[in-house]
Amino acid sequence: MKAHEEFRVGKSLTLADSDAGRKPLSRGDGAADKKQVEQLASQIAELQNLLYAEHKRKLLVILQGMDTSGKDGTVKGVFGKIDPLGIQTVAFKAPTQHEKDHDFLWRIHSRTPGKGEIVIFNRSHYEDVVITRVHDWIDDAECIRRYAHIRDFERMLVETGTVVLKFFLHISKDEQKKRLEARLADPQKHWKFDMQDIEERKSWDVYQRLYQQAINETSTDHAPWYVIPADSKTHRNLAIASVVLHTMQDMQLSYPPENPALANIKIT
Amino acid sequence: MKAHEEFRVGKSLTLADSDAGRKPLSRGDGAADKKQVEQLASQIAELQNLLYAEHKRKLLVILQGMDTSGKDGTVKGVFGKIDPLGIQTVAFKAPTQHEKDHDFLWRIHSRTPGKGEIVIFNRSHYEDVVITRVHDWIDDAECIRRYAHIRDFERMLVETGTVVLKFFLHISKDEQKKRLEARLADPQKHWKFDMQDIEERKSWDVYQRLYQQAINETSTDHAPWYVIPADSKTHRNLAIASVVLHTMQDMQLSYPPENPALANIKIT
Repeated sequence: MKAHEEFRVGKSLTLADSDAGRKPLSRGDGAADKKQVEQLASQIAELQNLLYAEHKRKLLVILQGMDTSGKDGTVKGVFGKIDPLGIQTVAFKAPTQHEKDHDFLWRIHSRTPGKGEIVIFNRSHYEDVVITRVHDWIDDAECIRRYAHIRDFERMLVETGTVVLKFFLHISKDEQKKRLEARLADPQKHWKFDMQDIEERKSWDVYQRLYQQAINETSTDHAPWYVIPADSKTHRNLAIASVVLHTMQDMQLSYPPENPALANIKIT
Repeated sequence: MKAHEEFRVGKSLTLADSDAGRKPLSRGDGAADKKQVEQLASQIAELQNLLYAEHKRKLLVILQGMDTSGKDGTVKGVFGKIDPLGIQTVAFKAPTQHEKDHDFLWRIHSRTPGKGEIVIFNRSHYEDVVITRVHDWIDDAECIRRYAHIRDFERMLVETGTVVLKFFLHISKDEQKKRLEARLADPQKHWKFDMQDIEERKSWDVYQRLYQQAINETSTDHAPWYVIPADSKTHRNLAIASVVLHTMQDMQLSYPPENPALANIKIT
């Protein structure tokens, strides 16, 4: 089974049945896996050159997951070799008052990729159906409406030339405990620690239920979700890099045809 | 029949059967009609204060029509009394290269109103299914896709608190001839004249057919089209002002409840 099929959400996902610790792509050797990630990341960087030169299609990568699930690490590990010219990362935080005065997709739409670009959403419009629901800022009916808005919005993006890849970085509650403890233990990681993370952790089960619902409601043929076992950082990167590379290979990117008019040009 | 029902597009519109010269709201006296427009415009301006103070809902007014159909005149005549603080007019021109690198709704979405705001689109995303099709920049299949994108987009806007009003300013081909000739005859109107207008006029019938299709495809319960007979400038404003006022009255706008905490505040 190819990587993109291995993690792709099919008919219906039950998050609790999805083992966050499994490593189906591993060769059983951490060092070899890391080397493999490096190779995949280099290939992705090469294909990005073609995407940029072609200037036709767009790639949007959406990263979601619980706190400490490795969104930042994924950006660095999988997309770190790409020429900054052709990639942008957008880290969506709590919306400002001005952003809240508009529909929830307003600030999202404005940051979607243009032709030839890769954009990584580190958190996204999915926060607007998960965090917002956990905190009771919206009710179930509004969630259902927003799922429909998201499906329509993403279909429009796809039909206008954007490839949309959505990754849920799936970690276990135990693994999050370890990672939060590691942040507390290391003063150089304190900047990553937020007291709010402890609060949000108390709602772990509600988050899992809402993520599961959001994924099932919005995993479409045109914009599928991939649930990535993420207790292992290396294997997480291996899995995501595999899906990204496979997707970009499927796009059959190529340099625009050579321009015969340039054959006889002399630079004087 | 109320004004908003008089012009509202029902099941299916045939533009050729719609008389651009009729004046169903007129009292038969031009001066009286003009006075009536002034009164309606003042009432609209008053209701805008409530919309702004309420800071909850949004109003998007879309103006479309052939060249010289009176879009600029409508902005001034119907919305000219509104406090500039709470209203913005966006005149969409041919998209820039950067805008074309994104989907056609990207630049549109970014200019939609926030809470408490009125935004007037002087031309809009409907140019992207009409002009683009006339010039064969897109084909019929892409038109159909874009109609669906527009329906989804406008439904999302409505479901997130925006009232969407769409006006087609319907003039006859003879009336356009007169207005273009008037622009040519008056040096002070030359800035409004564009040689391209003469070219576009040659495609009159194609434009009419495509506008008719666009209107029929996107006139929904949540975001209806109003076809306004616009050979008479005064009656055009009378009709549009009537629909806008009726719509704003229907919104049942009111100042937020008084704040009891303010009762005992002394300014020292």
